Amino acid sequence: MHRIAVHLRSALTQAQHLPIVPLHHPRLASHVLPVVRLSSVTSEPHPLTRLSAAASEHVTCCSLISHHVTTPVRRCSDLRAKFSHEVKLARVSSLPEQKMLEVEWAEGGRSIYPWLWLRDNCQCDQCFHPVSLSRTSFLQDLDLNVAPKSFELTEDGFTLSIHWTDGHSSRHEAPWLHVRAFQAEQRRARDLVHKIPRKFWPPQLPEANWEEVMQSDASLLQWLLLLETYGLVVMKSAPQQQGRIRELAERVAFVKRTHYGEDFSVIVKPDPSNVAYSNKTLALHLDLPYYFYKPGVQFIHFVRQHEGVGGESQVSDALEVAHTLREEHPQHFRLLSSVPVDWVDHANEDGRQYFKALKMPVICLESDGETIWRINFSQPQRDSYFSACPVEDVHAWYAALKAFHDLLYDPRFCRTFKMPPGTVLTLDNLRVTHGRMGFPDSDDVHRHVDGCYVDWDEVRSRRRVLADTLGADITQGL
Amino acid sequence: MHRIAVHLRSALTQAQHLPIVPLHHPRLASHVLPVVRLSSVTSEPHPLTRLSAAASEHVTCCSLISHHVTTPVRRCSDLRAKFSHEVKLARVSSLPEQKMLEVEWAEGGRSIYPWLWLRDNCQCDQCFHPVSLSRTSFLQDLDLNVAPKSFELTEDGFTLSIHWTDGHSSRHEAPWLHVRAFQAEQRRARDLVHKIPRKFWPPQLPEANWEEVMQSDASLLQWLLLLETYGLVVMKSAPQQQGRIRELAERVAFVKRTHYGEDFSVIVKPDPSNVAYSNKTLALHLDLPYYFYKPGVQFIHFVRQHEGVGGESQVSDALEVAHTLREEHPQHFRLLSSVPVDWVDHANEDGRQYFKALKMPVICLESDGETIWRINFSQPQRDSYFSACPVEDVHAWYAALKAFHDLLYDPRFCRTFKMPPGTVLTLDNLRVTHGRMGFPDSDDVHRHVDGCYVDWDEVRSRRRVLADTLGADITQGL
Repeated sequence: MHRIAVHLRSALTQAQHLPIVPLHHPRLASHVLPVVRLSSVTSEPHPLTRLSAAASEHVTCCSLISHHVTTPVRRCSDLRAKFSHEVKLARVSSLPEQKMLEVEWAEGGRSIYPWLWLRDNCQCDQCFHPVSLSRTSFLQDLDLNVAPKSFELTEDGFTLSIHWTDGHSSRHEAPWLHVRAFQAEQRRARDLVHKIPRKFWPPQLPEANWEEVMQSDASLLQWLLLLETYGLVVMKSAPQQQGRIRELAERVAFVKRTHYGEDFSVIVKPDPSNVAYSNKTLALHLDLPYYFYKPGVQFIHFVRQHEGVGGESQVSDALEVAHTLREEHPQHFRLLSSVPVDWVDHANEDGRQYFKALKMPVICLESDGETIWRINFSQPQRDSYFSACPVEDVHAWYAALKAFHDLLYDPRFCRTFKMPPGTVLTLDNLRVTHGRMGFPDSDDVHRHVDGCYVDWDEVRSRRRVLADTLGADITQGL
Repeated sequence: MHRIAVHLRSALTQAQHLPIVPLHHPRLASHVLPVVRLSSVTSEPHPLTRLSAAASEHVTCCSLISHHVTTPVRRCSDLRAKFSHEVKLARVSSLPEQKMLEVEWAEGGRSIYPWLWLRDNCQCDQCFHPVSLSRTSFLQDLDLNVAPKSFELTEDGFTLSIHWTDGHSSRHEAPWLHVRAFQAEQRRARDLVHKIPRKFWPPQLPEANWEEVMQSDASLLQWLLLLETYGLVVMKSAPQQQGRIRELAERVAFVKRTHYGEDFSVIVKPDPSNVAYSNKTLALHLDLPYYFYKPGVQFIHFVRQHEGVGGESQVSDALEVAHTLREEHPQHFRLLSSVPVDWVDHANEDGRQYFKALKMPVICLESDGETIWRINFSQPQRDSYFSACPVEDVHAWYAALKAFHDLLYDPRFCRTFKMPPGTVLTLDNLRVTHGRMGFPDSDDVHRHVDGCYVDWDEVRSRRRVLADTLGADITQGL
């Protein structure tokens, strides 16, 4: 038995079905659509195809939600292609020169698929395991010279059958093929499953609400999308009790442990092993730059806040600052993105010593040499070893670092505010710098901050599952 | 009070001191030297300098081991520079054109240090925190135009004092400066603190012993060095009880959690969410390629082993195979190292769904475009989406993948053996492929494998702390 979630742009049919999960954020509202569940529809094959044919023009996407682990979860995202029209195949032909098949869609347009890819991705029970949703065929059995002996379409245009020269037969369904087309549009949609595009901050920083995030999957998704897009969300109505921050992490997935533990408290300690555990000003920085696997998302929970002067938070988007640096001072950008810096930390935790060390530039680019994937910036954890910078570049590198620092504090980018108790700053630790103003050190000062990390691998995984389950249309980004 | 560990190449003086920690591995023995502790030496400043002056020519390196957290741990590695001769400064002069100071060493040779670097790394109590071992000065206070007003050496040549135009005064000690010289030799030594060079496998695979690793820090270090060098160590004399693998992980640091949990058991399950949980053959693969932060080191603990035919382990060093591929088939290498592959996993664990997805090539290069840092290879977790490969390259890419696969299984690289119960395979999951032969599925077959991961960040940290504590000389590699 399947349930089917249909997502409607029109309010017309909403009243007929329950439950409707509204999404509050204005930027999100136009893209993430109300979820309407039709219960207990059918156990027929291809229920979505049949449903979408019957549905009104207001239906823009569907997703199949599984009751049973034996129903491929992947179908959720796969079949959510374009059900405003039925996806059907009209014609298939072979292009032996290119070793490809070309299909023509009923709605118009063509796509080409390499033979080897089709054979490698045979979806039969022998080649593909429907529970683990993974390939079970062996690469050693893949014949590089395999070719279709014959192929045909079913009458409804839904299934392409191929009989191969290696004796095997495959069946591929039209929607499955459609979302995997090697064309730009389908690839862009898949890109969004992988990563949500980042944007720079709007005038008002994105916000979320602890209670809503804890109770509503739609609010949880909304917060995660904001976090992935902007790298920072201020979360309100959190508890004013210590030790609660794990609840937020576990609402997402699980905590990323570091040598400072899983969740930790930032309170004034004598002889601290990290300068954060003092009452001093912390300059803008990103945490743990000496980790190759630098924790991805940071939660800073303000359990108690000092009420007098001091203790204000500062944040600045190092991603936007780096882009600005590239425009305004390309030479500085070149140095900061090419010169490896030694990052280091010596810590004692749970009676064990840690000695972390990493060489990595301040601005780290992806292999395209263009996209910024990670910023490292932390005055305390920059080592006195500077063991990969050509000595003649050292002075220019410092000038670049200082320029980057000054831009981080530029009022165009830096925001200063005091987080009240019962709020959580949620941050992309690969992108957003944070700091705090110093505060008095006396018995009257009670400032207690809890923190923990969750990696982007887990955050994005949760976002994907939620987007599938709720049928959220994230193809437009935020 | 300090203790001093002196490491002697000569057996001559060993008998005079206790305890001596012998290291067993023949490759290691010539480089990691016996540790000799001289207890309760002195609380004078610069005890090492004084000691090394008094020591025989057999003393090749020293390290200072701290009793108290208030004694900088960093000194362990710092001061272990070159104490066969005393490190002293003979002369200092300014190079105003380059904005550098040039020092001449008492033992001969010169080094240059940029003014800005010297000022930035002032080691006074105001600029540097001796407990957290980190910089406490603020970048905003660093004057890019700072210059020495004057400078002088102490009479013993140990300390360089600089009076700066910004009014501040710094003191830098000779050994501190020496190990941070911007010359190739010192930089190479520091590189080894960061990473141990990798080597291809010797005819007999490296081995370790569970009991020894659990009880001796020297054996622990030896195992970690072998693991970092060869990417694979077979560990013997492990317990034949389930749930014990965490002890090994916690001997290093702490477990890396994934969506399969912390430690996990690979036993036959009905409807497995991963093909590993079946009795089928697993082709050579690396685990979890869909994690951007792919777990670094994997422990596979053979608690029970099937005694009949089947269940053999296979391993193959994908690093060496990739190097071979680059030499023998450069076009294949180019495709596998440039075409992003979609990796995916859908899992259910603890009642929660996970949907991991990542685009990354099979062979991942560092930013130098040359060094291989990570291999991704897993037939089940390669997605049917292939959303970043130009369609016209698909066929050639499959040919490259098949060639890589065939090389992995080439008898030059692939080793097949059966792990007895009570052994642990320890693997670099960024480098070494592993697989297993299928085994019968019946009530008579009892095969139970436990596993967990620890990240390289933590493994290398532990190796550094141990190398410092034991005073191991890792400057030659293994």
